[in-house]
Amino acid sequence: MLNPDITLVREYFLGLQSSVCNQLEREDSTPFISQDINADNGGYSRPSVLENGQYLEKAAVHFSHSIGAELPKAASERNPELAGKSFEALAISMIVHPQNPYVPTFHANLRFFLVDRAHWHFGGGFDLTPYYPFPEDVLHWHQTAAAACAPFGDTLYDRLKAWCDEYFYLPHRKEPRGVGGIFFDDWTGEIFGDVFAFVQSVGNHILPGYLPILSRRKDLQFGEKEESFMLYRRGRYAEFNLAIDRGTKYGMQSGRRIESVLASMPPRATWKYDWSPEPKSAESRLYEDYLRPRDWIRELT
Amino acid sequence: MLNPDITLVREYFLGLQSSVCNQLEREDSTPFISQDINADNGGYSRPSVLENGQYLEKAAVHFSHSIGAELPKAASERNPELAGKSFEALAISMIVHPQNPYVPTFHANLRFFLVDRAHWHFGGGFDLTPYYPFPEDVLHWHQTAAAACAPFGDTLYDRLKAWCDEYFYLPHRKEPRGVGGIFFDDWTGEIFGDVFAFVQSVGNHILPGYLPILSRRKDLQFGEKEESFMLYRRGRYAEFNLAIDRGTKYGMQSGRRIESVLASMPPRATWKYDWSPEPKSAESRLYEDYLRPRDWIRELT
Repeated sequence: MLNPDITLVREYFLGLQSSVCNQLEREDSTPFISQDINADNGGYSRPSVLENGQYLEKAAVHFSHSIGAELPKAASERNPELAGKSFEALAISMIVHPQNPYVPTFHANLRFFLVDRAHWHFGGGFDLTPYYPFPEDVLHWHQTAAAACAPFGDTLYDRLKAWCDEYFYLPHRKEPRGVGGIFFDDWTGEIFGDVFAFVQSVGNHILPGYLPILSRRKDLQFGEKEESFMLYRRGRYAEFNLAIDRGTKYGMQSGRRIESVLASMPPRATWKYDWSPEPKSAESRLYEDYLRPRDWIRELT
Repeated sequence: MLNPDITLVREYFLGLQSSVCNQLEREDSTPFISQDINADNGGYSRPSVLENGQYLEKAAVHFSHSIGAELPKAASERNPELAGKSFEALAISMIVHPQNPYVPTFHANLRFFLVDRAHWHFGGGFDLTPYYPFPEDVLHWHQTAAAACAPFGDTLYDRLKAWCDEYFYLPHRKEPRGVGGIFFDDWTGEIFGDVFAFVQSVGNHILPGYLPILSRRKDLQFGEKEESFMLYRRGRYAEFNLAIDRGTKYGMQSGRRIESVLASMPPRATWKYDWSPEPKSAESRLYEDYLRPRDWIRELT
């Protein structure tokens, strides 16, 4: 398949949304609430949210199909010949904020942007934000990310892993958001089918990366101290989403449905002034051993 | 006094900080914890924070004196002849997040920026963010703001009130942050003494605006529903500070001490997906009657 086919991408994203929701519902025994929102210009979005679940404090899995009459200025600056052209954009994004601090938060998204046969690209990836990390969980996450990339090039995982570390970083805290994963943007190629196959591989590896971790940690006993640390760390998540994340900024500025844009926000978060964990505690190990870029697969195997 | 005198401004800001801390401590019977932080280049800051008080969940009152070797680019763009000049900046900022949802959150700050005798300005103001507003509290707040401005011009309060409404606005929510107050920036004049007298008047009216409200609401009985609404509304406060507020953005990007910059964050905040208050509830009255620009003094007297 040489040329981009938006119908195929749309079907894949919608199928992925429904599969992710079904699997998370099975794990939690709590239903997602979904809405179908049709825009006047033919656009469509389907936000799906699960709140106050048994294991998932909040899960949001959103699909959107936007149709634009005219390319935003920023998009056509690099390609002046595209100025004024119409475009379509598809996106699926998902986030899980768990009840149990031993279960990490994860986030994933895939995006497709189409102007014409010669101008289209994908973006996306997935990343993990543990509160109390278990080395085997981080290893599994990165091995799954590497498996998603493996068929598409020997160095692809390493490149996208480094890109993820760079993107999910809080400069004001000098801290990574979590332990990363993979990230890519402006991803295009000569043959649409090849690029789309890679994007599908990323999409198909999201829950295989997360579910085994959720499943083995979700019933671990935890106390007030662990919950309080999770809420404190979620403050960082709120900082990243509101102050750093380009997608959220764009969503907030472009006047898109704000409850969809901010569905990624943690259900609860706290800020404690000038707080830091006790030396040698489990909490301080998160900062020392996990909140720094590491070559997880080579170091942990 | 024709020419700017930074020593006088510094003394006034430091005195105001100490007076505000003393008065809030008396009200709460909880001490502020302060630090003295000296920068290598002669700069100095004094963050003071009270946490988990009886009535104040968090109060932060910060003083800072920054010395800059070279004007930031943004500052000299309007005045190219200033490029490369050194400068000094003084600031005092304060915020109170109460325990009781019937007590509003308030924020105030004053800033002084000095390049040379002919180039200096003040900025600042104060604004109120109620959860469950009482008309007499909002009226008292705005009457105090009007009293601060009254000696300095007949239309001054109206202008600074409108400026405050414009600044403390969340465009992505199409919502004001609260019921406003007064706001001013780039405030300079022929005679330094006159401008400084106005700034002192603003500073001297902050606690007289807030303390009577705190004092008459702090012991009101409230339940889980009211607390939960306060935490939800604090999510908006976090959104404003992290995504909209220019001062916070500048602080985060300029590499200043991040715990001072983000001391304004609410101690706890929540996000509920697509939530809105029940029609005709006290919570929905906040949106309908208070989260819109109003001519408070004329409408409420």
